[in-house]
Amino acid sequence: MNMSDKIKLGKNVKISDTAKIFDNVVIEDGVSIGDFCLIGYSGTANISKKLIIKKNTKINSHSVIYLGSSIGENSLLGHNVLVREDSVIENNVQIGSFSDIEGYCLIESYSKLHSNVHVGQGSKVMSYSWLFPYVILTNDPIPPSDICDGVIIEPFSIVCTRSTILPGKTLGFGSFVGANSLVNIDLKPETIGIGNPFKQRGSINLIKIPNEKNCAYPWTTRFNKDYPKDINEIYKNLKKKYIKS
Amino acid sequence: MNMSDKIKLGKNVKISDTAKIFDNVVIEDGVSIGDFCLIGYSGTANISKKLIIKKNTKINSHSVIYLGSSIGENSLLGHNVLVREDSVIENNVQIGSFSDIEGYCLIESYSKLHSNVHVGQGSKVMSYSWLFPYVILTNDPIPPSDICDGVIIEPFSIVCTRSTILPGKTLGFGSFVGANSLVNIDLKPETIGIGNPFKQRGSINLIKIPNEKNCAYPWTTRFNKDYPKDINEIYKNLKKKYIKS
Amino acid sequence: MNMSDKIKLGKNVKISDTAKIFDNVVIEDGVSIGDFCLIGYSGTANISKKLIIKKNTKINSHSVIYLGSSIGENSLLGHNVLVREDSVIENNVQIGSFSDIEGYCLIESYSKLHSNVHVGQGSKVMSYSWLFPYVILTNDPIPPSDICDGVIIEPFSIVCTRSTILPGKTLGFGSFVGANSLVNIDLKPETIGIGNPFKQRGSINLIKIPNEKNCAYPWTTRFNKDYPKDINEIYKNLKKKYIKS
Repeated sequence: MNMSDKIKLGKNVKISDTAKIFDNVVIEDGVSIGDFCLIGYSGTANISKKLIIKKNTKINSHSVIYLGSSIGENSLLGHNVLVREDSVIENNVQIGSFSDIEGYCLIESYSKLHSNVHVGQGSKVMSYSWLFPYVILTNDPIPPSDICDGVIIEPFSIVCTRSTILPGKTLGFGSFVGANSLVNIDLKPETIGIGNPFKQRGSINLIKIPNEKNCAYPWTTRFNKDYPKDINEIYKNLKKKYIKS
Repeated sequence: MNMSDKIKLGKNVKISDTAKIFDNVVIEDGVSIGDFCLIGYSGTANISKKLIIKKNTKINSHSVIYLGSSIGENSLLGHNVLVREDSVIENNVQIGSFSDIEGYCLIESYSKLHSNVHVGQGSKVMSYSWLFPYVILTNDPIPPSDICDGVIIEPFSIVCTRSTILPGKTLGFGSFVGANSLVNIDLKPETIGIGNPFKQRGSINLIKIPNEKNCAYPWTTRFNKDYPKDINEIYKNLKKKYIKS
Repeated sequence: MNMSDKIKLGKNVKISDTAKIFDNVVIEDGVSIGDFCLIGYSGTANISKKLIIKKNTKINSHSVIYLGSSIGENSLLGHNVLVREDSVIENNVQIGSFSDIEGYCLIESYSKLHSNVHVGQGSKVMSYSWLFPYVILTNDPIPPSDICDGVIIEPFSIVCTRSTILPGKTLGFGSFVGANSLVNIDLKPETIGIGNPFKQRGSINLIKIPNEKNCAYPWTTRFNKDYPKDINEIYKNLKKKYIKS
């Protein structure tokens, strides 16, 4: 383990003997760092930047986290996760194995990214969102260019496996994007969107629980694993802010 | 190399000096483990579980194999492969680099997964199947939920590059899924399915070898690399079991 | 660090103490090799082959480069890049994290591959091309087979996120493939192609810079970061070779 006095370690920290921690890294109490990780890597970035990893967060093996970012409390990163510079990952976030957070992103609290999610620079993933495997958030409308027009995922959105969101598009509060879609418009709140070409298909209430008459969405009525117990109340309260009736 | 008396090693085993082998791992004769691998990782799983890696199997660098799984004889895993807990990988299986076996899966003998294949929890990939790069097997019909409705790939199926199989769907014996498809129905045996929206397009006999009149499928009539020599007989015999005429 | 007299190192070379350099590797002046890399890995390949990494090239962490390949000057490889045997990567090339160059490929000078690009065996990516995240170049028209009918990407082509190019297809000089396309024909030079089913949609001049009347393509009129200053002249001169008026 490479360790200098420019590194601050809290209590009950577990760092694998094969992980490397670079200078200017703060690791708070109860954090766990897996094997073959690089924590505080700078590449060609400014080495005067810092990286903070907050309480009780776990980073699994083979992950690379750049200086200039921060990772909140109680978060969980999978294996082979890459988080580049100047991204903010808040509390209680989960990021699956092989995911790639490209830098200058905001991943708000309680959002969950499954495996192999690609988050382009400048993306904003808001609280309680779900991005399923191989979702891609893009940012360049005329590649290659210097334009960075990041996607916005509003709270409680669901983006199913292998969907692509085109630059600058917004997924509205509580919206649902079906698998393998190419999203080229702003999707309305609490609305289903699906396909390539992409089409809006009405309210999320239309999706039922298999073999039941009950609505499957909003999912907060039926699922709360790893969430605050009052997740459904949080949904209702936040909805008032995003959807003016 | 981390090695305790809770690890059992066979003869002629090659373990890279940078690989880590955790407790409760059995490695049989002739196995090869590449650099920077974690073999028998437990994460938060039950550390009383075991991992067995059977004879002559090779695991390439940067791979992570969890406790609770087993890997059969003569199998080959690429670089950066992730196999999570409680999966059974049988004999003579090939799994390509960057593939992610999510746990509680069955990968039967002689099936082949190319690079970057994502196998969701509870999937069943049967013998002699092929999953090409970036194929995804899903399992949750109303994400997020606790439902795990795994895909079934019957023997000798072909799933071309970047296809997605939706939860609970079955690909019939010897079926063929074209590239970039989104499979939302059960595909009949020896049938071509393609596209998004997905459509069945008749018998696999319709696909010809380029510049020839001969049928390309079943592929066992023209290809047997790394298979038993009588692979075409195996196909015919197994077909009787799956397709009642 | 594993180092034998069968390795040749130039001046000002930086090799991380956790990287492994195998025999028959030549590393020229100014090269940088990141942590947990395997450089000159042979697998089951012929260990009499060589690997050369030319001046000032940087290879980031967790990458695996096989014997039998060569990497040119001033190139940049991301994290977790895999380059298999007998591929030629020329000068000033960029290859993003998690990309997989499968072997027997040619990646010409100044071409750029973003993250998680999969380049099948026998592909030819010509100078000044761009392949964006999760692009796949395939090679087998009747998988599984021994046919290796690689894709050809002519110079200055743009292939947007998550597009798949089917075996043996050619993207013409300066062509543009939209996101999430499945390319099943040869695309004409300076032509837009998009979708699944794939369709040609006219000249690249039809794409405008957002909120402007100016054409976005060819991109060489408006973007030259990391390119020769006279990139637009290079475009015009090379165009004469590829497009006979």
